[in-house]
Amino acid sequence: VSGASSDLIELDPTWAVGDRPHGGYLLRLLAAAAVDESHPHPFAVSAHYLASPTGGPADVTVERLRTGRRVTSSRVRLEQDGVHRVEVLVTAGRHEAAPEPYWTAPGSAPPELPAWADCPRAPAVRADGVPIGFLDHVDMRLDPATAGYASGSPSGAGVVRGWLGRADGADVTALDLLVLADALPPVTFDLGMYGWVPTVELTVLVRGLPAPGPLRAEQRSSLLADGWLDEDCLLWDSTGRLVAQARQLAGYRLPS
Amino acid sequence: VSGASSDLIELDPTWAVGDRPHGGYLLRLLAAAAVDESHPHPFAVSAHYLASPTGGPADVTVERLRTGRRVTSSRVRLEQDGVHRVEVLVTAGRHEAAPEPYWTAPGSAPPELPAWADCPRAPAVRADGVPIGFLDHVDMRLDPATAGYASGSPSGAGVVRGWLGRADGADVTALDLLVLADALPPVTFDLGMYGWVPTVELTVLVRGLPAPGPLRAEQRSSLLADGWLDEDCLLWDSTGRLVAQARQLAGYRLPS
Repeated sequence: VSGASSDLIELDPTWAVGDRPHGGYLLRLLAAAAVDESHPHPFAVSAHYLASPTGGPADVTVERLRTGRRVTSSRVRLEQDGVHRVEVLVTAGRHEAAPEPYWTAPGSAPPELPAWADCPRAPAVRADGVPIGFLDHVDMRLDPATAGYASGSPSGAGVVRGWLGRADGADVTALDLLVLADALPPVTFDLGMYGWVPTVELTVLVRGLPAPGPLRAEQRSSLLADGWLDEDCLLWDSTGRLVAQARQLAGYRLPS
Repeated sequence: VSGASSDLIELDPTWAVGDRPHGGYLLRLLAAAAVDESHPHPFAVSAHYLASPTGGPADVTVERLRTGRRVTSSRVRLEQDGVHRVEVLVTAGRHEAAPEPYWTAPGSAPPELPAWADCPRAPAVRADGVPIGFLDHVDMRLDPATAGYASGSPSGAGVVRGWLGRADGADVTALDLLVLADALPPVTFDLGMYGWVPTVELTVLVRGLPAPGPLRAEQRSSLLADGWLDEDCLLWDSTGRLVAQARQLAGYRLPS
């Protein structure tokens, strides 16, 4: 480990889910602290969420674990009030602008979605009044077929999908993919379970630089058992290229 | 972080791929150092491989990041000759013996495989003479439909699947799943690419305790681009329950 560097930063309270910072926002912030000019793009980012922080001052510490020619690896930790909140490992490198894929699995094409304009933008407040502040920053437009939960009619299929972009209209960067890979509502909503789904671990692979335009996103789960579920989220850019793969382990509670 | 504890350990040179320790072997060894009596099972294990170690003495250092009631999180590092080789984050807890799943995705059933006895055991040496020592410890029986690469006839489908168990006949433990989730041959072999596929990052979610008996395993990739591929490996126990989900980012070279 070559010397640690610490910074006092400010967690933006508007990037929230309820009254807590959004997990993808934290991931982008911590990964951004680990990249450098020669290795500007996160390739693999693994976060273990230890304790939820709040908006306001926090300490970010970066330790470079290895500097290679092709990739670098770093350890980043977020502390607040002397409590370790999030620990992240970041392997970063440089993606080519738009390489021709060497091979793409037959089943990995993006999902078909209704047109962007036909998917209403998700509001930054839930029907039950809970504020979802990060949706002021992220323009999320769910496929109405998977948005039934919002009106009490979940499909039961255990899938959510839709369009994602930046609300300010700027192009999505490689670092932004870390936010968007954790932006769709929990798959549990589509199963009629509306409780919190706290993430314990989240790993995102950034597979390429997104072309301009909104991204297509789909999130699924394989198994809910023993209080734990996986969520798998894939992101495709406007040209149909797979640009991010995310998987998380999260807790769930059964509806009472 | 509550105090670090370091141990001098010995990397078993027989747990190898070529002349290097097997990545899943390292993962089990490092995760085993992080679990405790109250939290004996790895739930989510994220490894970033910095530099390949060799068999022989090495230092393992464990730092507990958070001790909770339900889960604990630890950081574990492997050093050898003063060089940081592997960094792992481990979130651990206790899985119930065999909970009834609350929900299982329709598409997440185990693959159909020929009977165990009809799948020949993979030898611990490749056709080209490269020793694969860990296959003396792991009993791997590939579905002949995905083992064509071994005789120069890869299917081109980008999938490998088969049966996995311990060669000593013992029941597979939760920690053993970390070995088996990295045991199948690279998906690239099934695409006719026989070069090394060094893992940069590997995360394994252990979803339950396996029932006795051989496991079914399937590994796929979504995308090969820009020198990088993902590999997704799923493991099911003998009762058909999904017990592990692994995803890794690895490098590939085009055949010359």
